[in-house]
Amino acid sequence: MTGIPEGIVPIALDAMGGDHGPSVTVPAALQAIGAGGVAVALVGDAEAIQAELDKYDTPAKQLVQVVPAEGVVEEGESPARAFRAKPNASIFVSAGAVKMGKAAGFVSMGSTGASIAAATVVYGTLDGIDRGALGGPVVGYAPNTVIIDLGTNVDTKPGLLVDFAALGNVMSKLIYKNENPRVALLSVGSEEGKGNALVKETTDLLNSTDLNFIGNIEPNDLPEGKAEVVLCDGFVGNVILKLTEGLGDVIVSHVKEVLGETDESEKLSKEIFERMNILEAFGGGPLLGVNGLAIVGHGASGVNAVANAIGTAKFVVETGLIEAQQAELDRIRAEVN
Amino acid sequence: MTGIPEGIVPIALDAMGGDHGPSVTVPAALQAIGAGGVAVALVGDAEAIQAELDKYDTPAKQLVQVVPAEGVVEEGESPARAFRAKPNASIFVSAGAVKMGKAAGFVSMGSTGASIAAATVVYGTLDGIDRGALGGPVVGYAPNTVIIDLGTNVDTKPGLLVDFAALGNVMSKLIYKNENPRVALLSVGSEEGKGNALVKETTDLLNSTDLNFIGNIEPNDLPEGKAEVVLCDGFVGNVILKLTEGLGDVIVSHVKEVLGETDESEKLSKEIFERMNILEAFGGGPLLGVNGLAIVGHGASGVNAVANAIGTAKFVVETGLIEAQQAELDRIRAEVN
Repeated sequence: MTGIPEGIVPIALDAMGGDHGPSVTVPAALQAIGAGGVAVALVGDAEAIQAELDKYDTPAKQLVQVVPAEGVVEEGESPARAFRAKPNASIFVSAGAVKMGKAAGFVSMGSTGASIAAATVVYGTLDGIDRGALGGPVVGYAPNTVIIDLGTNVDTKPGLLVDFAALGNVMSKLIYKNENPRVALLSVGSEEGKGNALVKETTDLLNSTDLNFIGNIEPNDLPEGKAEVVLCDGFVGNVILKLTEGLGDVIVSHVKEVLGETDESEKLSKEIFERMNILEAFGGGPLLGVNGLAIVGHGASGVNAVANAIGTAKFVVETGLIEAQQAELDRIRAEVN
Repeated sequence: MTGIPEGIVPIALDAMGGDHGPSVTVPAALQAIGAGGVAVALVGDAEAIQAELDKYDTPAKQLVQVVPAEGVVEEGESPARAFRAKPNASIFVSAGAVKMGKAAGFVSMGSTGASIAAATVVYGTLDGIDRGALGGPVVGYAPNTVIIDLGTNVDTKPGLLVDFAALGNVMSKLIYKNENPRVALLSVGSEEGKGNALVKETTDLLNSTDLNFIGNIEPNDLPEGKAEVVLCDGFVGNVILKLTEGLGDVIVSHVKEVLGETDESEKLSKEIFERMNILEAFGGGPLLGVNGLAIVGHGASGVNAVANAIGTAKFVVETGLIEAQQAELDRIRAEVN
């Protein structure tokens, strides 16, 4: 982007990503610009984006740039195959804009796999990390608890879980402002030694670091916020993420069924939904372990959620999280070896 | 037990198990007997049991027998060590009563590990099974969905997951009366091939059986009841069980906070609690893979839950589940090999 005033953070937005495309991403970009501090490059089908932009008359449009891209990576499509078949798809062009220094980070509500692939391939990963890792709070009743990994890496080895401890620790410090985050292993019993082979072997490694490692945390204690960083294999983290969402949906229906259409019912349903669908409610979180900023959001996100995600991108840029990760990885690895 | 009228099923109850001991187990036994069809051997500290029995004046007492035992295996105690140190603890005497033919099954709200150890060691396991497996519905919004394993076996191999498919299938048929249960693998994506190594390898094995195998189910679909038998490693199953309980607790608090002390609040809270804490609400379920009936319940169970668990024991005896398991295991294994 050119001609951006000083102090304004340029963000690339995958305008085609998400369930709704430009009809949501364009007004979300304008809303985020209106909130201040960002300029947005809308990446995607230039005609469709422009048609949507034409509906609005706001000074925010001065901080919008349309960046053409061809095609979209669909949910469920193989990201690796998509990168070969359509290298100019909106998500890859978005990541490329960041790589070329035209934006400070990208935001996408499209296929999570494609966002991770784009960040991994275009940005490159930190030393010793194979692919980006998703981590963040997913149980809204414990909004200060980062769970990592949320589904990017399965069949995780103990060494990688230690890396996640380092990444989660620095994320908790910089993003959630916890001075000395409690780091815990998710397990099926609270006593040391309770769990599977991964938990047992990782316990030994974490005990040798100076992290504030408090041992195991049980899943029923997750909503109580008993740790600020919770480590688990991505299969398990993804189960936590998706089960929480699924339970939120049936409970919200249940609340509405019992209470009917009252103000109290509306308020309670909305609050439960937001706490059980934190990604959808609050936009998205940064991908960890890659050499650049990628905010990965929820496909179903509406205008507010996408605008929040753009705001999150600006905030994360300012915390220096991306730059701080490699140093923390190196530091913790040195303690283990 | 002697002198039991014909058609009455004798059940051994670990009277010392659970958070409340005889003050709950004794009235629960009397309540279950009053409901009809069972006699109960109360196993434990004879004096404490008798003192509790003396508080009641009911004909149900004619179908009660007190069986003395010495000590209790506490929650968190190593079951193997407990079996050596206190072989006459209430849970082991309860299992022994079944083994000797004095009861048709035992019920315990005590340490889950001790119940599994008692059933595994005293009853013995089915051919090729190392230890009992806990399976049953845990998400009350899908009360017809059996999830197996719930925490007994971690670092599960594909062959064992196929065994669980057989056990879950026969449980679903006999206990939940599903003619042709849909069997699914819990995974982090719905497409075949999405998941970890265990899911991928087990998929190949299950495809060669005549089970009604429908592929993967995602965690967000669990509350929708999209399968009747859901297979997972015990670590993952235990996460589902405990996360559901933990979320239930914070949501019930949230509901009460927003709605205050009204009848509607009370009704909604109770319903949500019961659906998120199905084990506590409904007593307990049978342990699978062992040569005898063991109903493993929740430590916090109150009188109704324990009485329900005794009723469940009688029901399970009548279904013939225990006897049917080995045949189903043999049948499915033959298809895979």
